[in-house]
Amino acid sequence: MKRRKLSTEELVEGIRSGNRVILSRAITLIESNREEDQRQAEDLLQAILPDTGKSFRLGITGVPGVGKSTFIESFGTLLTEKGKKLAVLTIDPSSQRTKGSILGDKTRMEELARNPNAFIRPSASGSTLGGVSGKTREVMLLCEAAGFDFIIIETVGVGQSETHVHGMVDFFLLLMLAGAGDELQGIKKGIMEMADSVVINKADGDNLKQAKRAKAEYQNALHLFPANPSGWIPQVKTCSALDKSGLEEVFEMLTKFQTQVVGNGFFDKNRANQQVSWFKENLNELLKISFFKKPEVQQRYQEKLQEVQSGKTPALNAAHDVLNVF
Amino acid sequence: MKRRKLSTEELVEGIRSGNRVILSRAITLIESNREEDQRQAEDLLQAILPDTGKSFRLGITGVPGVGKSTFIESFGTLLTEKGKKLAVLTIDPSSQRTKGSILGDKTRMEELARNPNAFIRPSASGSTLGGVSGKTREVMLLCEAAGFDFIIIETVGVGQSETHVHGMVDFFLLLMLAGAGDELQGIKKGIMEMADSVVINKADGDNLKQAKRAKAEYQNALHLFPANPSGWIPQVKTCSALDKSGLEEVFEMLTKFQTQVVGNGFFDKNRANQQVSWFKENLNELLKISFFKKPEVQQRYQEKLQEVQSGKTPALNAAHDVLNVF
Repeated sequence: MKRRKLSTEELVEGIRSGNRVILSRAITLIESNREEDQRQAEDLLQAILPDTGKSFRLGITGVPGVGKSTFIESFGTLLTEKGKKLAVLTIDPSSQRTKGSILGDKTRMEELARNPNAFIRPSASGSTLGGVSGKTREVMLLCEAAGFDFIIIETVGVGQSETHVHGMVDFFLLLMLAGAGDELQGIKKGIMEMADSVVINKADGDNLKQAKRAKAEYQNALHLFPANPSGWIPQVKTCSALDKSGLEEVFEMLTKFQTQVVGNGFFDKNRANQQVSWFKENLNELLKISFFKKPEVQQRYQEKLQEVQSGKTPALNAAHDVLNVF
Repeated sequence: MKRRKLSTEELVEGIRSGNRVILSRAITLIESNREEDQRQAEDLLQAILPDTGKSFRLGITGVPGVGKSTFIESFGTLLTEKGKKLAVLTIDPSSQRTKGSILGDKTRMEELARNPNAFIRPSASGSTLGGVSGKTREVMLLCEAAGFDFIIIETVGVGQSETHVHGMVDFFLLLMLAGAGDELQGIKKGIMEMADSVVINKADGDNLKQAKRAKAEYQNALHLFPANPSGWIPQVKTCSALDKSGLEEVFEMLTKFQTQVVGNGFFDKNRANQQVSWFKENLNELLKISFFKKPEVQQRYQEKLQEVQSGKTPALNAAHDVLNVF
């Protein structure tokens, strides 16, 4: 059964009053690729703009197996106990294909999913050429307008989405395990240097000693990195999402960070810069999408890609050849 | 006095025979933005393609003051003593403006500039919107066709060019000073994780002890990073470009690296991947350039940028508005 289409006014009103059914429908609208939906999505974004920007935006990344869901479940519950309204957006590169991760994510975070002050939503990472960022940022704005004052954006730490997520959050947290080595294999290079904090999870039972040693090692390593423009010195923490230890310290760290960067003006400056980058990235993506829409472009692109791969044509020439179709 | 325009055949022949005057003119042609020159540049690239790819490509980065010129001068001289023919391409973000760095670079590397087996050329980092990569990669191909079997690409480590350079070299070397702290301030985040080696320069006199300690610290830190897909474990070395110590060890490291990655197949695989990325990046840049050529686009872009900065228009809406001019 096709549901009645809601007007922009109805959506805005529903979002502002915190109606989750309407918020979900608004997110679906934002994520839609239909031209008609996109126009309405823009009207919606324009209308809610004054209600956005008031949350704390936390990016969490880490390879599969590190315990991200359990961490978000435990830490998210703590946040709601402190009176926060929390939205969790998970970016799963595979979700666009399976379409099954809505259920998957809710099952992963059972307790949080039932929590009236938490909202969990998977965010497709975009299926278009170069479209790694999808609409996560716009979804975040909708959640802010709906009154969520803490947003967690979760990624798996192995792809291209981390740079994008780093560019849309206030604080970037890398979740790890003790015993550097194998568990690091999958993580993308450069992520550690972007992290505002490395949190070593599963610091419990027999792991505790190892986790403490790892903490010291990482703290030494982070110390060698170039300083943050925020003046913030990246922190290493240990926690156990399972027995809920160390989470209070993570929360305190975020509070301390916020006080510091709001105080020195970095918070606002960073948000403004992110806004501009976001505009440029969107423009670049839209330009690519409109370019690759033409079947002739697609075809020539594939031909030239082959030629470049086989060393028959210089990259620059091949690029010109594709552009000339336009 | 306007010089006679050389035909593509004359250029190809001159380059193949190692004629530096003709090589320089070919580079000027490649870097030209005139449409007519660009067409000839493509013919030239196509013609020399079989003669390219045979050099070892080394990226060197480090903030101003770390001693890059002295290092390249000393290390480059060592390379020529070992029978290598060396081309040094320096990317200076400011060179496009001053146009003065040709002389500047030659003065910086006096000994190498007089060396018959070395060729030094500054490479503008591109003046177009988003055009950070310029034509350095194409210039590198010309140098390879001219018989240079060792290419050094130098950047200043503070901008966007490093990621591009990392994507066009076989080995990425970060030059640093002992005493982590202030001298790291300027370096861009993520560069350390990309480095195949951190070389601590000025390890001489009173600095020696500090340099050795820094070496141990960095070696520990690099050990915590995610592993390279090449299987190569990043090395930390100390050297003094001034008293020419430690340079032989750097050379040995490069040889060891080459043997390892040629052996395990990474070298070829990486070159092929770089080739494809290069094609995609070029296409993206050309697309942007052709888009921003229209004055209406430029104007609308500036307007929307203002609106985004002042928080009046959502980024996605603004991007759509600019695209719609097209």
